[in-house]
Amino acid sequence: MSAWSRAIRSLKMKLLYPTSLKLDTQSLEGFSVALHPYDVKKPLPEELIDAEILVTWTNTADNLKDAASRMKNLRWIQSLAAGPNDVINAGFDTSKIPLTTGSGLHDHTVAEHSLGLLLNAARRFYEMRDYQLQNKWPAHLGGPQPDRPAGAFTTLRDAKVLIWGFGNIAKALTPHLVGLGAKVQGVARHSGVRNGIEVFSEDKLPELLPQTDALVMILPGSDSTRNALNTERLKLLPKHAWVINVGRGTSIDEDALADALEAGEIGGAALDVFVTEPLPESSRLWKAPNLVLSPHAAGGRPQGAEGLIADNLRRFLAGQDLKNVI
Amino acid sequence: MSAWSRAIRSLKMKLLYPTSLKLDTQSLEGFSVALHPYDVKKPLPEELIDAEILVTWTNTADNLKDAASRMKNLRWIQSLAAGPNDVINAGFDTSKIPLTTGSGLHDHTVAEHSLGLLLNAARRFYEMRDYQLQNKWPAHLGGPQPDRPAGAFTTLRDAKVLIWGFGNIAKALTPHLVGLGAKVQGVARHSGVRNGIEVFSEDKLPELLPQTDALVMILPGSDSTRNALNTERLKLLPKHAWVINVGRGTSIDEDALADALEAGEIGGAALDVFVTEPLPESSRLWKAPNLVLSPHAAGGRPQGAEGLIADNLRRFLAGQDLKNVI
Repeated sequence: MSAWSRAIRSLKMKLLYPTSLKLDTQSLEGFSVALHPYDVKKPLPEELIDAEILVTWTNTADNLKDAASRMKNLRWIQSLAAGPNDVINAGFDTSKIPLTTGSGLHDHTVAEHSLGLLLNAARRFYEMRDYQLQNKWPAHLGGPQPDRPAGAFTTLRDAKVLIWGFGNIAKALTPHLVGLGAKVQGVARHSGVRNGIEVFSEDKLPELLPQTDALVMILPGSDSTRNALNTERLKLLPKHAWVINVGRGTSIDEDALADALEAGEIGGAALDVFVTEPLPESSRLWKAPNLVLSPHAAGGRPQGAEGLIADNLRRFLAGQDLKNVI
Repeated sequence: MSAWSRAIRSLKMKLLYPTSLKLDTQSLEGFSVALHPYDVKKPLPEELIDAEILVTWTNTADNLKDAASRMKNLRWIQSLAAGPNDVINAGFDTSKIPLTTGSGLHDHTVAEHSLGLLLNAARRFYEMRDYQLQNKWPAHLGGPQPDRPAGAFTTLRDAKVLIWGFGNIAKALTPHLVGLGAKVQGVARHSGVRNGIEVFSEDKLPELLPQTDALVMILPGSDSTRNALNTERLKLLPKHAWVINVGRGTSIDEDALADALEAGEIGGAALDVFVTEPLPESSRLWKAPNLVLSPHAAGGRPQGAEGLIADNLRRFLAGQDLKNVI
């Protein structure tokens, strides 16, 4: 680097990008901004602390806390997580520093995982596994079977799937379910038709839940969603209904769910998220009947991060509204 | 029934339909044929033995053998199975009595199961289950993950899926795979483009197998497909590649597969069919690493059987070519 370009570089704003994922930084070039990699597990080095823009992904709490206290020039934080609770909890003054999320970067991966969990439930792969591990052939799960029997969740064809929390992930998931023949409806704060799917407000749950074969929960974590699926609502589900949760663990009352599973009041639950992760050893969910555990594996691999960062960087430099502001 | 309608009925041809599945027999009415239910597990009663048409589904070998020797007026057999080996082996003279299969009735169910097995492999639900059963959180399978790393089968997005045996089931499966972002190619006896998918002849396997992330086998059982996937071809697959088999067990050399799994030469195998079913206790496959066992559960639930029977019955009565003649 020549002395001249070094001088120019020192005048540019700094964007810090994390090395905790593989970013195609070429796709971030072309802006009047200096791009600097940083390690999300260590305190920021002194020469980066004056950066204006911070991109975060799987930063440690210590790293974020340190950044919040030391980065005096910070003007924008771009998280690549769909729900950047880590940044919010670190002490940044988000009343002054806009925080944008990675909403949209996880739609495809979470949708695929959700579909896999639904098929795992319907086709009972987890139960087949239990038999295999005992060297037993699960004869009752194979051979001739009744086709779409009433009061059972055995296929997505004609299954009534209710998606609670109807954002980007639901929109990515729905076409796969519809393609397999499922009848999909949604529940969200605001009712309406979205991507061809009828979405109802939450006050319709008492009518919708009793008609549900599989309830897919994609609610964000917040005070208003805490224990959204509680004892009362679990009791409205048919005995054969499955609950899939790929949103946040806090949206289900886990004790109420364990009760329902142990009493056979619902068909099963496939959970990717839990109130506490890793799931504590003491949790009743480990051994609850027809409980399928997935270790927060649905997302965790942002796709298209460069496009979002570049788009928001352009907006930032142009003084326009950012995307995904929290 | 009046004496008159009884007399008419006695003049009509008889179609025997099995009670081993729920058929909407109203959808078979309107033809000049008398419909008679029968039990597939017992010898046919004397008054039905002169029937001209036999529909079969999960008949016992004894029932079929008995029918083959006693039904002297038989003019057509409609099986609801995709591969009616049971009827072929029972001793019917199929050079004189046309045998039609249930091809097409299982496409949707087998496609759905295949998709489930592929997602089970990519998302490692079977491995999560192993951990859950030991009260262990499979941390390595959750949290932040590399997105589509080279040399691993972690998602259908951008995965190269090769379908070997490209008939109705492959055509039903492909749109779901493409929808999830997979790159699908086919292998069959005849090359060409089918439903927008490029299908190659088997002599291209040496070029295709090394490029495959997941090989889906949907070959029928016959002498020509025996051990189609053998040691030599297994060695052409990348170390991370998965093998899915929803066709017939005989199309894989099971010992060669067990060798490849034990040596870590392929990523894993999800099998719904086996050379001998139930899988014998002595089989090495039970405990082979990354072997996912499904107990011939992909199909087994004909969908739309009435439509096929009615269509073929109309053709039969009109003297036209039947559908799905073996």
